[in-house]
Order: sequence, then C-alpha cells, then structure tokens
Amino acid sequence: MLIFASYKLLMPYLYDKVQSNFARQGLMKTLHASLDKVEPGMVEISSTFEESLSQQHGYFHAGVIASIADSACGYAALSVAPEGKDVLSVEFKINLMKPANTNKIVATARVIQAGKTLTICEATVHDASGQKLIAKMTATMMIVDIHE
Amino acid sequence: MLIFASYKLLMPYLYDKVQSNFARQGLMKTLHASLDKVEPGMVEISSTFEESLSQQHGYFHAGVIASIADSACGYAALSVAPEGKDVLSVEFKINLMKPANTNKIVATARVIQAGKTLTICEATVHDASGQKLIAKMTATMMIVDIHE
Amino acid sequence: MLIFASYKLLMPYLYDKVQSNFARQGLMKTLHASLDKVEPGMVEISSTFEESLSQQHGYFHAGVIASIADSACGYAALSVAPEGKDVLSVEFKINLMKPANTNKIVATARVIQAGKTLTICEATVHDASGQKLIAKMTATMMIVDIHE
Amino acid sequence: MLIFASYKLLMPYLYDKVQSNFARQGLMKTLHASLDKVEPGMVEISSTFEESLSQQHGYFHAGVIASIADSACGYAALSVAPEGKDVLSVEFKINLMKPANTNKIVATARVIQAGKTLTICEATVHDASGQKLIAKMTATMMIVDIHE
Repeated sequence: MLIFASYKLLMPYLYDKVQSNFARQGLMKTLHASLDKVEPGMVEISSTFEESLSQQHGYFHAGVIASIADSACGYAALSVAPEGKDVLSVEFKINLMKPANTNKIVATARVIQAGKTLTICEATVHDASGQKLIAKMTATMMIVDIHE
Repeated sequence: MLIFASYKLLMPYLYDKVQSNFARQGLMKTLHASLDKVEPGMVEISSTFEESLSQQHGYFHAGVIASIADSACGYAALSVAPEGKDVLSVEFKINLMKPANTNKIVATARVIQAGKTLTICEATVHDASGQKLIAKMTATMMIVDIHE
Repeated sequence: MLIFASYKLLMPYLYDKVQSNFARQGLMKTLHASLDKVEPGMVEISSTFEESLSQQHGYFHAGVIASIADSACGYAALSVAPEGKDVLSVEFKINLMKPANTNKIVATARVIQAGKTLTICEATVHDASGQKLIAKMTATMMIVDIHE
Repeated sequence: MLIFASYKLLMPYLYDKVQSNFARQGLMKTLHASLDKVEPGMVEISSTFEESLSQQHGYFHAGVIASIADSACGYAALSVAPEGKDVLSVEFKINLMKPANTNKIVATARVIQAGKTLTICEATVHDASGQKLIAKMTATMMIVDIHE
C-alpha cells in the first residue's frame, strides 16, 4: 500500500490521465471494474464478481475477462503514447486457460512494442489469489488523434 | 417474421435448448443481448446500445462486441454438438474494423469446422443496418460433458 | 483457362505488379509456390508438395500453409493499395482444421477491410480438390511507403 | 556450453525424443533450422538466413519466423506430453513487431498451460543478438495418439 501510495505521489498525472478516460467507459462501471494501477507501459484492471457477469456455470463470462484485458491493454498503450493521442483496439486474441470460478479477476497489461502507429500489448488475467492464470491476451492498439 | 415463425415451428427444440443456456448467462442480460436466431451451426445475438455499454467515445465497447460474438460462436457450436454436451471457449481472436457508433450490433456466428473435441466458428458483427462490418471473430470451442 | 486468359488481358498491370514483388520473395520459390490469380482485393497462391515441405507425418507443415496464406493476404492488400506503397504483415492468426495430406494446397486471400493505414484480409487454404478446408487465416497488413 | 553439455547429460532422453521428431520435419531442414535446446516445457529453434528464406526486402519472410516458432511451440508441448503422444497445431497467432533483417532468428517457446487435451504455448523470436524482439506467438497445441 505504501508503495502504491508513493507511486501515486510520483506519477499522479499518468494515473489521472488514464483514470479520466477510464471513467468515460460506461462498460467498466457495468463490469464492476476498477483501475488499480497505472505505470508507464503497465496497467492493472480488476473486476469483482456478480451474477450479472456470469456465463452458464456461474463463473465470469469470457466476455468480461476479454473486456477488462482489452481495456488494460488500451490504457497500457495510452500510458506511453504522446500527449493529445488516444488509442483504439485494432484486434486482440485471447486464450482462456482455466475456468474463472473466482470472486475477482485481475488483468495486468504490458506494452511489448510501442510504435508510432501501432502498439502491441499483452495481458494476463489471474484470479483473486494471483496464483491461477485464467487467460492470456495479445492486443494490437492504434494510436490516433483525439477527436472531440 | 413468417419465415422466423415457421423456422421456430420446425426447430423449436434447438432454439429452446440454446435459449435455456443463454438465459443462464447473466452477462447477456447485462449487455441487453437477445438471442435472435438459432439454426444448426448458426446463431445470431444482438445487443442494444445504452451508456452502460460504452467505451470512451460513447460507442459500443470492444468488450461488448467480443462478448456477444463469443457467445454466438459458443451457441453455434452447441447447436451442432451431441446431446449432453456443453461448450467452452478455448480462445478467440477479433478484428475491430469500424467504430461501433450504432444503436444496435448484431453478431452472426457460423460453425466452419465441427470436430469431436474442437469446433471452429466465425462471427461477423454488423451495425443495425447490416451494412457496416464492425468486427470479425474466429473462435475455437471445446466440446465438454455437462457437469451439474 | 479462357477466363484466366481474358482476365490477364484486362488486368495485366495488376498481375505484373504483384508478380514482380512475389518473384523477390525467395521463400515462395523455396516453397514451390506459384502466384495463380490476382484480382483487385483477391489473390491465390498454391504450393506443390515435396518432402522438403513436410512435418513429422509427411504432410504439409503448418508453416508452409501459414507462409503462402500470409503472402496471399499481403498481395491481396497490395492489390488495392495506392501506387508507391508496399505492405507488411503486422500479425496473423491461423486455425489449422484438417491435416494437409494432399499434394497441393491453395491459399485464397481476400481483403475484408481496406483502410488508409491497415488492411484486414482473410485467407482460406484448401486441398487440391478444393473440397477440404485445411486452414483459415485472418491477417492485419500495414500499408507503408516503398523504401528502396 | 558446460551447462548445455551437463543438461544434455541429465536429459539426453528428452532431447533425443524431440530431435527424432524434428528430424522428420522436412521443412526444418529447408529452413536451415536447428534444434538448439530442449528442456521440460521449453524448446529453442533457430534458423540461419539465406536468400531462399527471404521476403521482398531481403529479410526473413514472416512465414519462416512463424514456421520455426510453431515447431518450437509444438516441441515445447511435446516435451511435457505423456509417452506415446504426439502434438498437432490447432491454431496460432503471431505479431510481427520488427523487420527480421538479421542473419539468424531464434525462436524460444514455453508451455504456459499444459492440459490433458490442449497445451498452450508462447514463443518469442529474437535476432542473433538476442536484443531485438522480432515476433511473438501464442499457439494452441492438441495432444493426440501417435498413429503409425
């Protein structure tokens, strides 16, 4: 917690920049998602389980897993993008490796290649304990001008 | 409508089988999704826009697009699976081709290869008019035993 | 043959443009690949089997299938790109659906979305008979300036 | 070298098992590929450049990169599969991040999830120096019975 606090002290601007975009994504609120960490090239988003996020067995739906991983990838890309730019998902691919029968999922996204036009990110999605790798995503993000 | 009505007459069992599984996916209700068509190897699911489904520009979030496409692929696989089986998403990949600034998205999934263990499906996601191709998904589904 | 001949009459320029690039890909010769068709937004490349292209069971290696499908996608994108541009593969995903125990594979690629920066293509790979769908690829191509 | 030597001493069986399968892949010889390392869940394959492996700019063709990464993923899966089993590629996705203008590419594959039916692997492809990340692959492998 101390680390997180000092981190926020050091990089409040980066967190706020991502948070203000995150707050405009209606879906993130719908998915009980919270923006837990923002570092240059790394973003963490988690979601807390409710019945409204389930698939047929009562676990997290793959779509929820993909949604928070996609947003985490987008914000990881945004965290290293130049000022005045926004980020759009071009494509992503996700492998669902374990059933998400957990009360919380945590998506951790990292930039693996930042380019002028495209940024490639990866995300892992773990359960609440951090021990179970539920899913892995690779995503291609496009850097675009902010259009108001 | 007449066609759809007669189709339901001919294949009420298939529709009901998929519908009963669909109704257990809490996320589908959350995404204002409706199961519009079920044929052997083909399923259509649509979602109606609300602010709660948005990304930062007020369009459908990629996660919503992926979620209904993934469910449509899963149900297309289920529609041709043997009795007593369920379907799980192993992986999917989605290309997001146009911004989803539309009040309704329609995911149409088709089985392109049905195997004993794995079934491969594709889905297109169009806007309300059916004219704009918003996204394209390829998904690998695994046929598993129903576990109560 | 007549159709192909007249097509070449109508679009010799397009075929030649792609063919001259294809001839510079050393790998295509290594894979016994031939550029069979070029139309605006559609390209067909085939490969004839030899032991040098095999995986462990003596069938076409997945890498050969992916290589000709990738090149076909790239050339489909190039066929609709502006003059003075070249095309690079950003990413692709391929599903291998049937063993490629056939003496010839044919990759048919089509543009499904042509943008200013990115072009999205799909390719199917069939056996010699055209009856068996061996693989399906989705590829993202980037339009770049030709650099001499 | 000492480490590699002692490793081969400790795990000669595993290396030989993979090597005997690798030797049956005609394509690996065609691509000047060599099986450099085999550990439980990790395999390294490299390829040395020749004109016969080029794309239009004289760099390694994406198909070569994908081919050795796919084989490395397959053998990583095989290295942890039960006796009497073989491995087939179900699907893979590759992001091509930098031009492969290098005289050697090295694909390093790791199992990230080993299941009864499916094994998920990742591979990175670097240049000769090991400093440049050229490509990243995620692959789904299926464990099948060896059929003679």
